[in-house]
Parts: sequence; C-alpha cells; structure tokens
Amino acid sequence: MTQLNELARIVGDSYVLTGDDAQPYLVDWRGRYTGAALAVARPGSTDEVAQVVKWCVANGVPMVPQGGNTGLCGAATPDGSGAALVLSLGRLNRIRAVDVDNDTMVAEAGCILQSVQQAARDADRLFPLSLAAEGSCTIGGNLATNAGGTQVLRYGNARELALGLEVVTAQGEIWHGLRGLRKDNTGYDLRDLYIGSEGTLGIITAATLKLYPLPVAQCTALLALNSVSDAVALLSVARKGFGAALTGFELIAGDCLKLVNKFYPQQRLPFEGESAQLPWYALLELSDSESAEHARERFETIVGEALEAGLVVDAVIAENISQSKALWHLRESIPLAEKDAGKSIKHDVSVPVSRMAEFIDNTNAAVRQRFPGIQHVIFGHLGDGNLHYNIARGEGLSEGRLLSWQDAVYEVVHDNVHRLGGSISAEHGVGQLKRDVLPRYKDAVEMALMRSLKQALDPRGLMNPGKVLVG
Amino acid sequence: MTQLNELARIVGDSYVLTGDDAQPYLVDWRGRYTGAALAVARPGSTDEVAQVVKWCVANGVPMVPQGGNTGLCGAATPDGSGAALVLSLGRLNRIRAVDVDNDTMVAEAGCILQSVQQAARDADRLFPLSLAAEGSCTIGGNLATNAGGTQVLRYGNARELALGLEVVTAQGEIWHGLRGLRKDNTGYDLRDLYIGSEGTLGIITAATLKLYPLPVAQCTALLALNSVSDAVALLSVARKGFGAALTGFELIAGDCLKLVNKFYPQQRLPFEGESAQLPWYALLELSDSESAEHARERFETIVGEALEAGLVVDAVIAENISQSKALWHLRESIPLAEKDAGKSIKHDVSVPVSRMAEFIDNTNAAVRQRFPGIQHVIFGHLGDGNLHYNIARGEGLSEGRLLSWQDAVYEVVHDNVHRLGGSISAEHGVGQLKRDVLPRYKDAVEMALMRSLKQALDPRGLMNPGKVLVG
Repeated sequence: MTQLNELARIVGDSYVLTGDDAQPYLVDWRGRYTGAALAVARPGSTDEVAQVVKWCVANGVPMVPQGGNTGLCGAATPDGSGAALVLSLGRLNRIRAVDVDNDTMVAEAGCILQSVQQAARDADRLFPLSLAAEGSCTIGGNLATNAGGTQVLRYGNARELALGLEVVTAQGEIWHGLRGLRKDNTGYDLRDLYIGSEGTLGIITAATLKLYPLPVAQCTALLALNSVSDAVALLSVARKGFGAALTGFELIAGDCLKLVNKFYPQQRLPFEGESAQLPWYALLELSDSESAEHARERFETIVGEALEAGLVVDAVIAENISQSKALWHLRESIPLAEKDAGKSIKHDVSVPVSRMAEFIDNTNAAVRQRFPGIQHVIFGHLGDGNLHYNIARGEGLSEGRLLSWQDAVYEVVHDNVHRLGGSISAEHGVGQLKRDVLPRYKDAVEMALMRSLKQALDPRGLMNPGKVLVG
Repeated sequence: MTQLNELARIVGDSYVLTGDDAQPYLVDWRGRYTGAALAVARPGSTDEVAQVVKWCVANGVPMVPQGGNTGLCGAATPDGSGAALVLSLGRLNRIRAVDVDNDTMVAEAGCILQSVQQAARDADRLFPLSLAAEGSCTIGGNLATNAGGTQVLRYGNARELALGLEVVTAQGEIWHGLRGLRKDNTGYDLRDLYIGSEGTLGIITAATLKLYPLPVAQCTALLALNSVSDAVALLSVARKGFGAALTGFELIAGDCLKLVNKFYPQQRLPFEGESAQLPWYALLELSDSESAEHARERFETIVGEALEAGLVVDAVIAENISQSKALWHLRESIPLAEKDAGKSIKHDVSVPVSRMAEFIDNTNAAVRQRFPGIQHVIFGHLGDGNLHYNIARGEGLSEGRLLSWQDAVYEVVHDNVHRLGGSISAEHGVGQLKRDVLPRYKDAVEMALMRSLKQALDPRGLMNPGKVLVG
C-alpha cells in the first residue's frame, strides 16, 4: 500500500478509489465485462495524468484509461487479474477555450459530449458529433474509439472533427499537439494514430475540435422504397441534388417499423395502405443554410424527381419541426423496441455502399438457412455504408437457443462482410470483444504493422494491455 | 553491376535507367536540389515495387520514391552520394476501378492528378483535389505529401480524400489496405500514418479515393475590404450563410492586384476609384447544387448583408462563367506576376484564422524593420488559415541583397508563425528544405515520437533517408 500512498500524493487522497468506491469503474455499462483493479485513480489535470503514468511505469502497473465508461467493446474495463490501475479522465472536464473566429474549441478529455455540443451552441456554433450515449460519454472516449454517430455522412467521424491533441505518452511525457490548423504538413500524423487506438498507445487528455455554423433550418422526410438497390440509387440522387446539405440518410427495414408499431402503438406510421407494407424506408435529413421553406422546397423538387423516376414509391416530408422530430423518433425507437422484444445478436458492420444490396441478400439467406426461426432487424446509416445488422428471435424460437448461436452468427455475418470488402467494426472499435477475431479478417502484414507501432510507442506493454491486440 | 542486372530482371532492362537517362529524375523541377543515384528503377506493378524494395533491403541500398517530381521541398531528390536507388512510380498509372454507387475510385500512385480528376468527371463525379501542378503531379505524390490546394475549405486536404491505401512497406511486404469504407474502426490508423510521411515509412502504390457529386453551378465574387479583421469576420458570415456551398475563400493583398496589373495590364481590375485602392480583397467561390441563378441570388443576399454591416466596401459578383474565370485568373496571375518581378522569398505557412490579422501586422512590421527596401506579396487561402507570405524586392533593392537575407527572413517569419500556434509548412511538407529547422518548432516529445515511428516501420533506415528527419 506504500505504492498507493504515493499515488494519493499525486492526485489527492479522495481521488484514489478502492473497494466499493472502485466498483462502478470495473464493470462496463451494459454489464458484459467485469474486471478487477489495484485501484482507480482520478487525476485532475494533464500534469497529474503524466505523473500517474510515470508512477505506473516505475511500478510496472498496467493502465486502463476510462472516459464515460459507455464503450460497447470492453476497451475501458480492466481484466480480472487486479493488477491494473484504472485511470479515469472524468475530472479533466474543462472547456479550455472557444475560438469563434477560428471555428475551434479546446476541450479536455473528460468533457461529456453533450457539454461540448452545448459550449459550441453557446458560441453560435455546431459541434456535429452526435450519438445515443452523448449524455454520458466523454469526448476523450469518443476520440479514443473514433466514434461515428448520426451525421458522419456530412461531417465525418470523430477523427475528422479533431485538429489537434494533447496526449500523455506511455512514458508519461506530454505531447503538446493542440494545434488549431486546417493545414499542417510538418511530419508524421501522430494525431490520427492516437485517435481510434482505444487507449493502447497513450492517453488523450485534450483535443482541439472543429466547429461548424449552426444550420438555419432542418427538415426530414421519410420515403417508402421497393428495394435496397433503389435506396442506393436514391442516395446518389440525394447527394447530387442536396450537396452537403444532406446530413442524414438512414435505411430502415419495413420490419423495424412494424416492431416499433407493435411496442409503441401510439407512434403513428406516416403511411397507409400499400405504402405501409413496403420492405424498405429511407429517412433523409437536410440541414439548410437558408430557411425551412427552402429545405422543404428542395425536398419537394428532388423527391418529386425520384418519385417520377420510380426510385421512391411514396414520401412524407415533414411540414414543421415537430413532424421532423416525430420521424426521427420512429428511427430512434427501433433499438428500444428491439430491446423490448428480447435479447438479440447485434452487428456493427460496414460495406461499400455499392455492395449493400448484395450483402443484405446473401447474408439474410445464409443466416436464415443456418439459423431457422430467427428474425432480422436491419437498419443503419446507408450514407456511410454502416449497417446495424441484428438478429432477433422469431415467434417460437427461445432466447436461449438464439443466444447459443451467437458466435456462429457472428462468423457468418462477418465472413460475408469481409468477402465484400467491409469492416467488422464500423463504429464501436475492437476492445476485448473483437480482439481475437481481428486476425481472421486483417491480413498478416497489417497485423504485424500494428504490433510494430504498439511496440514502438508502448514498449513495456502497460497501456491498456489486451485491448485491440493480444497483450 | 551484377546488382543492377538483378534489378533489370525484376522490372525489365529498359526500366533501369543510368547515366543521362537517369538525369531528369535527379533534379527537382525548380532546379533547387540535385542529387546522384545508383540508378532509377521504374517498376510497372505493385509486385515489382515490392520486389525492388526487397532487392534494396538485401543490398542495403537506400530508396527515394518519386512521383511526378513536382515537390517543393526536395523530398523526391536523392542526396549527392550516389548510393540510392530512385524508385519512380510513374508506370503504375492505371485507374483500377471507379465505383459510382460507392463514390470511390481506386487509382494507382503514378496516375497524374488531372487524369484522376478526368476519370471522376467521366463518371459524373468530382475528385476535388486541385492544385497548380495538377497536369504533372501524381496522386501518389499528393498523398505522400498530403497536398492541399484550392478547395481544402470544403473538401479537406489529400488526407481527407483517401479512404484506403495499398502500401509497399520498408521490408517489401504489400499492405492491402484499399478499403472503400467511410467507417472502419478495426485498429490503428495506418492509412494516415503513411499519408504525409513523404516516402520515409513506405511506398504508397495505390489509393481508394473519395468522389463527390459534380456541382451544378459555380459562381465567384470579388469583394473589396478595409482590413484582414474584416476578412475574418466576413469568412464567418460566409460560412454561416453559404454552408458547405462555400468552396473557396481567398485573401489577396491590394498590392498583389497592382502587381498583376503592372505585368498584365490587359487583365482589368473589376473596381474603379477608391475601391481599386483598398488594402485587401477576398475572392469567394460558391459551388451550388441548384443553379447558377441560385448561386448568384445567395451571393447577392449574403454579400448585401455584409455590405450593410460594413464588412465589405465594394463587391463584384460574376454574372456568368467567363466572368467567374476572369476573377480566378486575377488570383492565379499573382504568382506569375511575382515571378516576372524577380526572385522572392516564399513562405508556406498557416496560423489559426483568428490570429491572421495579428500575424500579418506583427510580421510585416518585424520584416520591414530588419530588411529595409523589401515589398510584401501576401495572398492565400484564408478559409484554411494558409498564407503565401512572400517577400520580394522593392525598387532600389538588389535581388542579390534580398536573397542574402533569405535564412534570416525565414527565421523571423517562422518564429512569428510558431508564436501564434501556426505551422511552418502548411501544404508543401518538410523534405530536405525544412528538415533542419523542424526541431526548432516542434517540441522534443513530438520529435522523439516521430523518430520512434520511423525506427519501428523502417528500422534499417533505407526509406528516403534524410527527408523529414535527419537520417
């Protein structure tokens, strides 16, 4: 315990947690991963983070950096050995600066995403990263996992929203890389190496983030479609017709809307008759720099052309903000209704947009053949080629039997993804969850390069060991 | 020469050049750097590149990868020792695939940028990277140096335009990373590490590039301004008012337009009287997804507001494509007129947009005080914080005297850039030109991290030695 005393001197007594106090940091929020730790340290500044890392290095203690603990792959949960220190960044939660003229903000790693969004809005700016966990996830975690979300089509992933980083290296040095520049070609891109490395190469302590103008108006439309191929053709028409004003293009299987309707009958589907029975729907969002009227007019023009071309069967364009919200609410209710229906087997995959129809057709057939009685719950961000391809139990299939198939289902789906040049983790990362299957889908050269980088930046292997790569 | 025979067996006799045949590959296009080489190899495929690299490794021969040889920092020119092999990628010049539905293209490293743009246009798509050397530079070189250009404000640098890479590593292995995915979180970002590394970590042999819809119309306006501060405020208004349709925002000092007028009097300035005498001008470009009329209307609305707010003194909005071209031609004639006026000392720098006025004021004063008789030629991409801050000789100052100040001028300008959080190389890279001053402007931690990465990926130090980092 002398060791921990030293740690307490660095961060303060009340910020070294053990026993029950440490417990919430040792389980991921879904309760899928449980670990043990020497202690949890909650440093209050970048300097303290650096000192804690140096302490870990001196004592050979592995470190597990943790943000809002909302990750989905177990990257922020320690292993069961109890040897590691959980290094929680939650107290580094200051917005250090907002530079309106430069359209940038410097936020510390522990800032909750929602507070970053709010600080941008307070300055009449948009920080466009947006995802379900935004009320509790942190920007440091978002960057460590290169989070995606709902507006990637227009603004990119977390990676594209960071101009600079401050990082504590695995040696406990501080890299002062908080540059707010759109152009800087002075050497290797350290920034993008740390982003998405899930805390295995160093600890992101702050970031310079890109801000955008707030859109003047937003408008949403729900379109009923005959096929995924039509959705892909419609995406092309929409990208051409709306340009960068197109900020959302979600694909939704008809079965998903029926599921929502079953569990939330108060949510009215905006279609009737045949249009309510189609296999696919697309939810489009425009962010307009002119006016709500202009956004609606643009929708009417482009959707009108798509109707005439036979790409769209029926369409509802929101007439006001509350209608727009109701359409989005349908989409957001899908995961909730899915949960109400019981456990399911989820996939976070991407394929080239051009292979989407082929992927869905082939994979559906393969899954149905091998796993009788299942039901598909398919929705996602078509504009990014990102699909939530989920498998639920149909009537007459027990939850136990469905879940017993989990690894086999993963393999069928991921093999299909891989065959079409896709990714087995589009948004959520690798963590512990996909670490062991990664070598099945990445060539040996890439795995070897990744190991070389890990060895170069963390030669002692103390940074979040056992995540992304086998420790 | 047995060695070279082996090389000839790999790439074919006629593709190993020595003596006079090798000469064009040993001098950069501006004639600033001249080197020597064992030979020049021109492999015709990725496999041949890999075999050549393996041959180099086996024989301890350093490699200098070369694209269109249009770089500005000497990164593609070998040193004078004659020990290195120049590895020219020019024969890898196939567009391997255009995937219209996925908005991607796979191009080999040796494709001329203009041919990549053309292949995109042939598929009714835009590849937005555009720069002065586009008729002879290659996409491989663009990626190796993370080229910028005129549309970074909207589409980003070369880095942001590549989704995947094929790379021959320093060991001669092939990394098959040609993924066409907008979302992929399966491990470390190797792509962005190779991009911008100037051939010092491996050789990019092909890339999966992002395509965009072609804009329906483009429209340009030239605005006369009282100050850089007003230009910065105008940028904010324009970003808000035009959204992502704003594809260009160039800042031009009034002196630059006078210089153009002096050497090309047939180029009419579109202003008269007081408006022709203002210290600053801004050239704005809109890429519209609706129509030329809509673009003009938007310009009239937003520029009208800026005139009323006093941010803009006078404005000319192009009424047709030829007027738009004439306005751009004024901007493009600045470097030509600058050249006609004699040699000058050029800087490729960036600072946060919010520090632009301060940078120009302070640096102008410092330069004027220490180097009497000089004249400023200042223009650049304000939207990216990127300035071509050039120093020419005024009347009565000799070219010789001006050039004798070169290193001292660099230091004054770069010190000011650094003090304001800027970059001493916004677009062009480091190469040989800025290698030795880099440690002055980067902290020791960052330099050490860069050396660790170099050591990890190129432990023998054979990949373009002496570029970016001291060999």
